[in-house]
This record gives sequence, C-alpha cells and structure tokens, in this order.
Amino acid sequence: MSNVMQFAADAKDASRRLAVLSASVKDEALENIALRLTENKERIFEANRKDLQQAQIDNLEKTLFKRLKYDETKLSDSVAGIRSLRSLSDPLGKTLMHTTLDDGLELYRVTVPIGVIGVIFESRPDALVQIASLCLKSGNAVLLKGGREAINTNKVLSEIIYNAGIEKGLPEGWLSLLTSREDVGAMLTMDKFIDLIIPRGSNAFVQYIMQNTNITVMGHADGVCHTYIDKDADPEMAVKVAIDAKTQYVSVCNTTETILVHKDLLDSFVPVLMDALKEKGVTVYGDDILSDKYGLEKVTEWHHEYLDYKVSMKVVADVYEAVDHINRYGSGHSDCIITGNRETAEIFMNGVDSGSVMWNCSTRFADGFRYGFGAEVGVSTSKLHARGPVGLEGLVTYKYKLMGSGDIVADYADKTKTFKHIRREV
Amino acid sequence: MSNVMQFAADAKDASRRLAVLSASVKDEALENIALRLTENKERIFEANRKDLQQAQIDNLEKTLFKRLKYDETKLSDSVAGIRSLRSLSDPLGKTLMHTTLDDGLELYRVTVPIGVIGVIFESRPDALVQIASLCLKSGNAVLLKGGREAINTNKVLSEIIYNAGIEKGLPEGWLSLLTSREDVGAMLTMDKFIDLIIPRGSNAFVQYIMQNTNITVMGHADGVCHTYIDKDADPEMAVKVAIDAKTQYVSVCNTTETILVHKDLLDSFVPVLMDALKEKGVTVYGDDILSDKYGLEKVTEWHHEYLDYKVSMKVVADVYEAVDHINRYGSGHSDCIITGNRETAEIFMNGVDSGSVMWNCSTRFADGFRYGFGAEVGVSTSKLHARGPVGLEGLVTYKYKLMGSGDIVADYADKTKTFKHIRREV
Repeated sequence: MSNVMQFAADAKDASRRLAVLSASVKDEALENIALRLTENKERIFEANRKDLQQAQIDNLEKTLFKRLKYDETKLSDSVAGIRSLRSLSDPLGKTLMHTTLDDGLELYRVTVPIGVIGVIFESRPDALVQIASLCLKSGNAVLLKGGREAINTNKVLSEIIYNAGIEKGLPEGWLSLLTSREDVGAMLTMDKFIDLIIPRGSNAFVQYIMQNTNITVMGHADGVCHTYIDKDADPEMAVKVAIDAKTQYVSVCNTTETILVHKDLLDSFVPVLMDALKEKGVTVYGDDILSDKYGLEKVTEWHHEYLDYKVSMKVVADVYEAVDHINRYGSGHSDCIITGNRETAEIFMNGVDSGSVMWNCSTRFADGFRYGFGAEVGVSTSKLHARGPVGLEGLVTYKYKLMGSGDIVADYADKTKTFKHIRREV
Repeated sequence: MSNVMQFAADAKDASRRLAVLSASVKDEALENIALRLTENKERIFEANRKDLQQAQIDNLEKTLFKRLKYDETKLSDSVAGIRSLRSLSDPLGKTLMHTTLDDGLELYRVTVPIGVIGVIFESRPDALVQIASLCLKSGNAVLLKGGREAINTNKVLSEIIYNAGIEKGLPEGWLSLLTSREDVGAMLTMDKFIDLIIPRGSNAFVQYIMQNTNITVMGHADGVCHTYIDKDADPEMAVKVAIDAKTQYVSVCNTTETILVHKDLLDSFVPVLMDALKEKGVTVYGDDILSDKYGLEKVTEWHHEYLDYKVSMKVVADVYEAVDHINRYGSGHSDCIITGNRETAEIFMNGVDSGSVMWNCSTRFADGFRYGFGAEVGVSTSKLHARGPVGLEGLVTYKYKLMGSGDIVADYADKTKTFKHIRREV
C-alpha cells in the first residue's frame, strides 16, 4: 500500500470513530489545539522562517510571500478562529425531518459527517489551521495537501494539531498531511476512501482537479462576476457599488470582472463611471459600441477573470440581455444589479443562475464570514450539495433513521396496513 | 452540432425559462399532461403493442416483458401519480434561511431548480411519465433516454407529454427523448449543458455512468443491504422482519442480501431462522462457522447483490463487528438491526454509514413512497446533495439573494460599519 493510500484508509477508519464522538470531545480537542499552538509558537515561527528564507532564495512573488508568512498576528487570528468555531453549535445530530409513517414507525432525517475530506490548498499556513478545525468540528477526517512553499510550517502545524487532537481522544489517522505533488494525483483515484475533495487555488488547477477525479469536488474554478447597472439605477449608488465590486480587493474570486450598463446610460452615466474607474487605476475594455465611442481596447473573451485593475464593459438593451449575457459568460459565482426598480431587480435575481445574486450591493459580499456562517470552507459554483459560500453546513450530510417494532413491508403491500405519513415539527 | 448537443443546448435555454415560471403554469401543464395521456390512450397502447410484439420476437425475459407492458392499469396509475404530484406544494422559491447582515442588508437562501437533468432509465414506460412530471414540478428541463425495448411507447408518450406542456406555456425544448445508445455517451460529455445525471438500471451500467462523466451522478450502483440480529432481539420479530427484508420482493435494491447474527444465537435462533428461510425457498450461503455447522455452501464475496432467493449469513461477536462488516462490505444503502436493547440500537444506527438505518423494521421500507415523499426519483448511495430515497427535494438546489441599498464591502473592511448577522425565523 502506498503512503497516501495508507493515510486515506486510516482516515476512513478514523472517520467512523469521529462520527460517533460526542460534541464535547471535539470541542475539547479544538480548545487543546488552540492551547498547543500557542504553547509551541516559537517552533512554528522557526519553521516558518525556514520557508520564508527558501522563498527569498526562490525569489517568490511579494504577494505570495505575504501569504506565506505566519507570525504572531496570524497565529492569534488562527487561535481566535478555533475558539469561535468551538463556540458554534454542533452541526451534527440535528433532526432535519421527522415523519410518523404509521403508529410506532418513526422516520428521522439526521445530520451526520460526510466522512473523509481531501483538501488541497494554497500557500497560506493559516488555511491549514482553519480547514483542520472546520473538519474536526463537523466530525470529518481530513487529508491535507498544502503548498510546497509552506512545507516546513505545515509539517509543524499539522503535527501539533494532530497530537493535540489525539491527547483529547480523537482517533488515530484523523488528520494527515500529504507533502509531495504526486500525492495529489494519488488522492484523486481514491474514491473508495475519500468522499469529497475541496481544491483551493488557481482556475487551471481547480479545473484540472475537477476533470481528473470521480470523487465529488466542491469549489470554484473561476469567478467571472458581473455588476449590471440598470436605467433605473441611482447613479451615485451605481458608481459607489461598482467601484467597491471592482477595486476593494482585486485578486479574489468575488470581484466584479464585467460591468454591464443599460443603453440609456451610454451618454449620461458611462463617462462618470469611467472617470471613477480611471481614478482608481482601472483599465476599461469595451464592446464595439464603447470602444468606438471612447477609444477603448476591445474585449476579446467575455468569460475572463482579470483579478487585476482591469474590467470589461458592455452595453445591453435591457435586463433580459443582461441576464442572458451573465448566464452565458459568467461562472455562476456572484452577480449584482443596481436599480431602483423592484420588478427589474426580481427579473434579474430570479433569472441569473448563480450561487449569489445581489441587488444594490457589492459582489464582494459573497463570502462565508460576511454571510455570517462563522467560518468558510470555500465558495461553490457547483449547484449540487452546497452552493455559494460554504460554511460548516457544507461539511455535513444526513442519514435516515427508521425506528419500528417489527414492522414489515408485506403488511402494506397486501393492504393489511396503510401509511399515515404524519409530518412532525422539528 | 450533433442532435444530442442541440437537445442539450435547447434544454439549457429552456431551463432558464422554466426557472422563472410560476407554480400555477407548471401545475396546469401537469393537469394537461394527465388529460392528454388519457385522451390518447389508444395511440399509446398501440405503440406499446408494437414494443411487446418485438419483445416476443426477441424472446425477452418474462419479468422484463411485464415491466414493458403499459396498459389501462398502468396508465391510470401514471395519471393518478401526475395529479398527486400536482397537489404537492411547490418545492421552489422556499426561503431556507434569512439573515440580516446589517440594517437594510438582507440575505436569503431560496430554493431554485437544478437546471437540466439527464435521466437514463430502464424499460418501464411508466418511469418516463413519472420522471418527466417530477422534473417539470421541480422546474427542471429534462433529457430522457429510455430502454431500447420501449422505444415506440416512449416516443408516443414523450410526444404527448411535450406537446401538452407546450400548450400550457412551457418553453420549447423543456423535454427531449434520446433514442440511440450512442446518445448516452454523448450526454456524459455535456457538462456545459447538463447539471445532473440520474441513471437507473443494473449495477454495471450505473457504475459505467459514474466512472465516465464529470457531471454529478445521483443514484446507486447496487444495494447490498444487511439485517443484523442482535442477542437481545425478540426471536419472533427477528424472523418476521428478516423474511420480509429478504423475500417480500427479491429483485429490488433495498432487499436484504446479508443476514448477520450474534454469536449467542448460533444454536438457539439460527436453526429457526434457517427453517423459515428454507420454507420461503431461500438458499443460505454461510461463513466458515455456519458452513461447517449446517453444511452450507460458503460465501466467497461478501459484497454481493443476489437479487434472488439467496442470502449470505455470517456470525458476528457483537454489534461492533456487525457495524464494521457493514461499513466494509455494504453499499451504504439500507441496513437494519433487530434488538430489544436501545443502547445497542443506537450504536448500530450511529455507526453504520448508510443512507438509511433501521431498527426493528424491514430494509424494504427504504423507498420514497413509503417514506412519504410523494414520488421518488431514485435512491442515492452518494453522500452528497441527496442521500437515501430521493423525492422532489432532491431535484432542487438553492441560491443566495442579497438585497441592499448601496452597501459596499470597503465600509466593513475599514471598520466604518460592523456586521450584525441576525438570524431570522423562516
């Protein structure tokens, strides 16, 4: 058995044990993890310094360097995150449905963990801490594969977290760190052991994962988000929201990449918006109309994620064209309409087939923390299981529990008995 | 564009229109479908006679022949099914969550259709009617691929259903029938247009589908269900339930295929159970202990679905061994414990990682109708999205709607504002 397969098989075994642990054991383990991380902070920082040194030698990009750094501030954020997670109510064992099928034959739908989750994440060591604690809180075993750049930090973090969990009674194998690039390929084949893969990273990377495994993948490849400015928009609000959606943080998935404007705004509003964008250092690419009128470079591909101070802009005839454009060229992530007209807003929000649709507020709000989920696993552009920003809830599934007293189907088949099907309040 | 791709692209367009149709339009279409099917029954029966004749020429198996037959009784069942579906409340537009993020910034999680569903089903023409109406009620466009044996019946049925829908305002392309075997292969590549595939049929077929597409597949390959008889079981109840679970209908997925018995029952209870099984014509295959003691043929593969009057039987030391055996060799479908001990039952129901777990009642209850879901799309052994018997609910997903009044993220990033995150009752 390969290393990875052994880890995965152990994780499956561990997941059976985790599934029946009480919430208090998991919460105590979370508290112990917070404690042990704090106690061992010098060891962590030292490992991180090694990674940072190597990053300097490798001439790593400045933004990556910043993400890689794990210092006092990031540790205390991690610890605060763990404690806030601990304080959340247990997502498991919740009764979602209760039906009395017949006298003494009771059906319950109850939340349970998913099982084994494989997470492949970018270079941020704080992601490791967050993912490990989310999986633990939701009763899942986890296989972690972090960025190569963070290998020393990740090794120390995962060792501390793993042992802190074991000390409080978590089963062996509840967490494993995979370290080589080949391990990712191996993971993708292990549908026997792994129930869900969450890839975080670049568009190309996530797409590669999605296309190379039979395991369910939760995540998003890209975020081509739109802001549509309707003829009934308040111009001041439209500029304010569009600027926020485009420039508040350009390198993330919920940033607006295309601005659609109603044709009636071509002469009045568009110049104002373009000035505001210019002032923020944003380059605008246009459709034929805008390019001709304002001398812009033309957009060649509408499904395009800039993650930069750049934006595509297009004139549309009405809200229906806006909806069609978004459904055709968007990525089903987050899309916004600015309008004072409720009816138009409803056409937009019902028509756009995305995880999040916004009315008069920035696409940048599409995020687990801002949505109040406490913690975020990621954003899903898949429509099944979990969609949009995904919190703890996305890491649980359910099972049916049926409790009887010797009930058999033959009695219902031959009409000796008939079902009552009484829905109970839960 | 190939035929199938055109159908799929049209279905995608249709799905956008279906998503914004009111419930009353869909319910009127359902009523019209019921009406048109009844009016055109002679045409349907004639087409079915053609299929039956061909089946006789092809010397089709008797059980398949019975499933293929679509007569007055089956039509009236279909029509009753459509009308009962119509009377169910709309699964769409339900608010699942409502959070006030801040004053005037309201977040809703609302149910919406999945989009385009591809269903590949066996030879039963009544399955076509049921699936088409389920997809319609849940606002999804549908691509149907039925068994080759039923091609004439399916063509007439789908034409009547499609036109009855169009008459009441459903969008063009809302339903298409695919007819050739190659169409299945083509469907599997169309993740651009198809959101979910539901295969119904043999183990090998469903596994083939699951392994050959990136589209999410909902269904089950096989049903290796277990009944565990604990030392604290009431013997009479144990025999009654085990016999029902094994023999009430042997050729379906929720039939028990393996009986596990506690070691204390080896001399007392096992002979009684074996007599009862023998009386029903069931051949028992045993583990080493049982084979030696009762001269049974040995089980060679524990993950085995007989779908016949045959059963595997094994002696286990306790409930933990039963749980381990089921998690290792079962298919995550439906598993039952018979015991008078509540604690033991809980260990079993929490420990077994299956869609349905039963206590003192037959595994045969695992079914959408019996669970009171009104109608069933199938049973899912996948853990994600929908698990266990799947009703209308399994055909919907959700989106987030965020409504503001010019809110921007920058205000929260620079702490001008802070989130309130007030959960509202829904």
